[in-house]
Amino acid sequence: MADAFDWGLLEPAGATGAVVSDDRILAAMVELERAHFTAWSSLLDVETTASLDVESLDREALLKESRRSGVPVVGLAQALREQGGTLVHQGMTSQDVLDSALMMVSRDALTVAREALTAAGRRFAALAREHRGTPFTVRTLTQEAEATTLGAVIGGWLDAVSSAIETVDSVVFPLQLGGAIGDGDAFARLSGRPDAVAILRRRISAILGLADPGRVWHTDRSPVLAVTRAAASVCSAGGRVGRDLGLLARDDVATPLHGGASSAMPHKKNPVDAVLLVANGLRVSGPLGVVQTASLSYDARPAGEWHAEWQAWRETLRLAAESASLLEHAAGDLVIQTRRAPVTPASAPRGSHEVDAAVARFERLQEGDAS
Amino acid sequence: MADAFDWGLLEPAGATGAVVSDDRILAAMVELERAHFTAWSSLLDVETTASLDVESLDREALLKESRRSGVPVVGLAQALREQGGTLVHQGMTSQDVLDSALMMVSRDALTVAREALTAAGRRFAALAREHRGTPFTVRTLTQEAEATTLGAVIGGWLDAVSSAIETVDSVVFPLQLGGAIGDGDAFARLSGRPDAVAILRRRISAILGLADPGRVWHTDRSPVLAVTRAAASVCSAGGRVGRDLGLLARDDVATPLHGGASSAMPHKKNPVDAVLLVANGLRVSGPLGVVQTASLSYDARPAGEWHAEWQAWRETLRLAAESASLLEHAAGDLVIQTRRAPVTPASAPRGSHEVDAAVARFERLQEGDAS
Amino acid sequence: MADAFDWGLLEPAGATGAVVSDDRILAAMVELERAHFTAWSSLLDVETTASLDVESLDREALLKESRRSGVPVVGLAQALREQGGTLVHQGMTSQDVLDSALMMVSRDALTVAREALTAAGRRFAALAREHRGTPFTVRTLTQEAEATTLGAVIGGWLDAVSSAIETVDSVVFPLQLGGAIGDGDAFARLSGRPDAVAILRRRISAILGLADPGRVWHTDRSPVLAVTRAAASVCSAGGRVGRDLGLLARDDVATPLHGGASSAMPHKKNPVDAVLLVANGLRVSGPLGVVQTASLSYDARPAGEWHAEWQAWRETLRLAAESASLLEHAAGDLVIQTRRAPVTPASAPRGSHEVDAAVARFERLQEGDAS
Amino acid sequence: MADAFDWGLLEPAGATGAVVSDDRILAAMVELERAHFTAWSSLLDVETTASLDVESLDREALLKESRRSGVPVVGLAQALREQGGTLVHQGMTSQDVLDSALMMVSRDALTVAREALTAAGRRFAALAREHRGTPFTVRTLTQEAEATTLGAVIGGWLDAVSSAIETVDSVVFPLQLGGAIGDGDAFARLSGRPDAVAILRRRISAILGLADPGRVWHTDRSPVLAVTRAAASVCSAGGRVGRDLGLLARDDVATPLHGGASSAMPHKKNPVDAVLLVANGLRVSGPLGVVQTASLSYDARPAGEWHAEWQAWRETLRLAAESASLLEHAAGDLVIQTRRAPVTPASAPRGSHEVDAAVARFERLQEGDAS
Repeated sequence: MADAFDWGLLEPAGATGAVVSDDRILAAMVELERAHFTAWSSLLDVETTASLDVESLDREALLKESRRSGVPVVGLAQALREQGGTLVHQGMTSQDVLDSALMMVSRDALTVAREALTAAGRRFAALAREHRGTPFTVRTLTQEAEATTLGAVIGGWLDAVSSAIETVDSVVFPLQLGGAIGDGDAFARLSGRPDAVAILRRRISAILGLADPGRVWHTDRSPVLAVTRAAASVCSAGGRVGRDLGLLARDDVATPLHGGASSAMPHKKNPVDAVLLVANGLRVSGPLGVVQTASLSYDARPAGEWHAEWQAWRETLRLAAESASLLEHAAGDLVIQTRRAPVTPASAPRGSHEVDAAVARFERLQEGDAS
Repeated sequence: MADAFDWGLLEPAGATGAVVSDDRILAAMVELERAHFTAWSSLLDVETTASLDVESLDREALLKESRRSGVPVVGLAQALREQGGTLVHQGMTSQDVLDSALMMVSRDALTVAREALTAAGRRFAALAREHRGTPFTVRTLTQEAEATTLGAVIGGWLDAVSSAIETVDSVVFPLQLGGAIGDGDAFARLSGRPDAVAILRRRISAILGLADPGRVWHTDRSPVLAVTRAAASVCSAGGRVGRDLGLLARDDVATPLHGGASSAMPHKKNPVDAVLLVANGLRVSGPLGVVQTASLSYDARPAGEWHAEWQAWRETLRLAAESASLLEHAAGDLVIQTRRAPVTPASAPRGSHEVDAAVARFERLQEGDAS
Repeated sequence: MADAFDWGLLEPAGATGAVVSDDRILAAMVELERAHFTAWSSLLDVETTASLDVESLDREALLKESRRSGVPVVGLAQALREQGGTLVHQGMTSQDVLDSALMMVSRDALTVAREALTAAGRRFAALAREHRGTPFTVRTLTQEAEATTLGAVIGGWLDAVSSAIETVDSVVFPLQLGGAIGDGDAFARLSGRPDAVAILRRRISAILGLADPGRVWHTDRSPVLAVTRAAASVCSAGGRVGRDLGLLARDDVATPLHGGASSAMPHKKNPVDAVLLVANGLRVSGPLGVVQTASLSYDARPAGEWHAEWQAWRETLRLAAESASLLEHAAGDLVIQTRRAPVTPASAPRGSHEVDAAVARFERLQEGDAS
Repeated sequence: MADAFDWGLLEPAGATGAVVSDDRILAAMVELERAHFTAWSSLLDVETTASLDVESLDREALLKESRRSGVPVVGLAQALREQGGTLVHQGMTSQDVLDSALMMVSRDALTVAREALTAAGRRFAALAREHRGTPFTVRTLTQEAEATTLGAVIGGWLDAVSSAIETVDSVVFPLQLGGAIGDGDAFARLSGRPDAVAILRRRISAILGLADPGRVWHTDRSPVLAVTRAAASVCSAGGRVGRDLGLLARDDVATPLHGGASSAMPHKKNPVDAVLLVANGLRVSGPLGVVQTASLSYDARPAGEWHAEWQAWRETLRLAAESASLLEHAAGDLVIQTRRAPVTPASAPRGSHEVDAAVARFERLQEGDAS
């Protein structure tokens, strides 16, 4: 295999992000080629038996060709044609393959993230109910402000989780298919069917479980913006809760059951999940900004903007998958030290209606799943 | 009046952005206080006749107090109480006023932007139809790729406009109301009605034409993320079209009827709209990134993150209003030099179905308006 | 005067930033035109008596022309030519005027910032010495780590201030002068002296107190990167100290003598300087990123990248001037509640050598000033 | 070995960036531990023979522990102590190891980048001289402006390269050493020498070829800002030249000898180096912004900001190493089609003095190397 640049050394929560690793993206590219091969052969009424195989690909050769052509698809298409013949990749362009593959891993990563968010939400909903009477003096601008309940604070976390879920649920993952310059002309020419590209979009997206956009979006990057923004919303929710978890650990109000050790001070119990949640929350604005800037496309493929997107797009997904997983873990690992919660002589529990509202909102989102 | 820091010297397309100027934000804050005053007096069954007036406010005094308290609302609330008595601002916190006011100007700015986008879209739809048979060799990665039509290229711009409109249409502009720590307790305490905050949210949002979120979102910044992302999508669409317009002007394929002059070369005719569209497209990732990072809230009001949002949030709106207006102007000012379009001996016009799809998509969005 | 877009409503610490207001930039542009007029007339051996006056300029007309040409200099040059005749602006281009003017206000803003940083540093040096024996248990990753002294903590702030001063001191503020396409040809042609642009650069930079770069940098934006990065370093130092000040206020270890009030909770004493320092620290990465992206210049003037720079460049300076001023104010307003400092039974004061090193480093920087 | 997340699939120019791969960072961490082990044993006057070996480390175990403690150093220190005994890592903290290792790879990456920049500069200097009389009409804001020479244009690229070299040369790569909370107390306590940390800093930095900062900078991230900004300057220079190369290829004025192929249009010859240079120029503002925001440190180690830095810091280096290499390759691969350069009936070659100035500046930088 090609040498690993990043095997997780600098990514403590990296295991979850593996859903968007190079291996997964390569597999998705092959899956896309396979679905195209099937649909295209069928449209042409050609019998095909060849299967396209990811394992036998020579990755060193792929990388070498990628340096030459500036895109990992040229070498891949050549290699797969050797497996399956000339119909493989026919009519498509590199961007069809890479954009669609990144949409496939986007869907997978955000699905994984949504599940973890839901698990975290369930735990926060239970905690919010449990602590709806636990007095807690909340702060504004660092200073003690007024008494409320820990339940109300946790209800706020639940709201953050619900908002992230809503944003993820609003995302559509469309197939990219347009050919050399985006008009699918080669499909029409070779098949003699003017609507070939529309048919192929419908069939291939059905095979892959992607949405059929009914158009090409090679220069309209709004689907990419939507995906990466949803990923950033997951990191935002995680970072927002992580900040609070860190401050509660600081004040010994709530601490992790399994805190992390230090290399210099083994007695310490660090709120590692909280720390990594904040880190990811801070990190995501980097790739999000790159995707935003790179959305200024032009021609039928711009000279740099599209290439700038790949790693940034994928990075937002890695961070989102990690953050959701960290949030789930943190929610399950939280020990509330109620005896330590700073108490103000509050008359009656406040904030109950927010707890109710937050729990009800989250439950509506869950019911949406079941329906 | 207080000294102007920015009166548009560095903002050539600044006129449109005035919809989010300090004056408009101050007016929106007073409008919010007025709506609260009305709804709160009514809830308390108190007759009030005082009106709250923005003109008589001493802006120098506001700024002085803003430096002292770190927020422009403390001084404003004091000044308005002198006009209307103790019920003014009662139960609210600074964040209720500023967040809600920024949501009001967000709605206004994105409404203005949407209208301009629609006007641009209508023009592009007409041009796309007109040039569905005009041959044009499109480029990928700077190099001539394949022959298509100018109509197909313009259909791509229309798709960018439609995507921006869709994103704007998906945005909700909620009222912020929660009081000191977000639980609306003061409203309940003073009125004796536990559900006072919910009632006020319903009434005030109805007065102001904002959405009633049914909750407080002081530490869940997803509504701010949604607004600023939609604004960034407008700039993205503008920048994407601006890049193409610049390149077409470079190649003398399409030029502005009214180009801009140069201080050194008066004979030149610069594609000014295109240039400013690209500039805004590049600029928006700055404030968008700040809003993203600032979404890591904590406590009931964080020590810097909320304050970091204000100018960045507003800046995305200024850029969006400008970009939409520039796009409308550019669309109307476009002169296509068909004789200069590089022609490849293409057999038949290609890309007609994309033109149809783009036009149909845009028309569906417009019908949505009429219904 | 033209309507104000931003008169400080959303900028509580805005007064200091006024050094980079539109008025100041316009004045700097006129000053540059004046210096050019003087040096150019002298080179041509032409007697001139006309003075160029900023007060009589019609700002509405400037803005109108700015929208038309996309740059505020075209209208300005026209207006000044009416005052001083055809030699005014002769041979220059818009970018010469705007880049040079922004360098002048950059120098002014960073000079103001450096003075405030030095004042803050002096105060921190005194505090670090005073508290070199005050025990303090410092935290890592939110958790109590080991005992050190408050002096060592404050020595860390001093180091941040010294680093910011060093970065500011490394910045050069060069004149921009190159004419229409950057080669100063018009100067050579009109004067008959092939080295006219080099002579003018020397003379004009001497008049204005800018550095003579010996070259044009219209497409090499490294001087802009250097200036804005130094401004960002000031905000970074401010934000880093602001975070600590906020946490110390949280723990009642150190509080501001004059804290800010809240609109809902008048009893509170918020660490306003700390809050605004953090906000500015978070804000500056926005415009810094824009300047970085906009540095991808091309042609002799790019179609958007240069225009994208202006507001972002200026914004970094505003934030730096504010942050340095906030830091000075915070340093002078700090009340250390030693009785509240969490004490660990530490044997002997630790961290004394860091205090000494930090103080010595800062004093070397100050001596550099005197020499 | 642990699974690879990124083996270069999305990074066509990735080979050069391998200098900052996880393997290299791990090796640098072990090298740092080795240097500490040597210096510390020597200071304690303890004979040691054990060598610390990177090859035998169990990477899966490292990653597992990294998830638990949130930092890859805790597991590493344990594993190396099993090899070398208790003196290994003694007195240090995770941040000492990781910050120092990242400084080592920073030095290596920027050294590699500087060499490639110099090679590119030599080629541009030769081309600028060669084409000092080749007429060329340069554009501003997309429109033809005035006639100059291709030499003057290439001289502008040389200036960008020189500026990047100057920025790289201004960077210092300091050792990080401070122990648990940054005051090196454990070294003093265990050795009985109050100045132990200062001695160790001197010795270890000498062994590793890092600078001795004379202080700890665990919470003053200015050395990290300096390194990453220099890396961004390399990408900026590359992107700025890349934009021009793309436009010259568009106009057939200068094309790559070995252009890249397309998967759909094998006849095309894409300016791949230019495309990837632009992409990297756009990408670098992402991680640069993260490092900027993460510089808001607090406590003796913040709860997320330091962790947010790692990947972003490394990413800037990867991009810089790639961009410099791409620039070198592009410079060597450039074929100027002088017959195609748009010619304006210019009287005499213009811009010669800029060519001279740019070449002289670059040569001064090279002489600096030799001296």
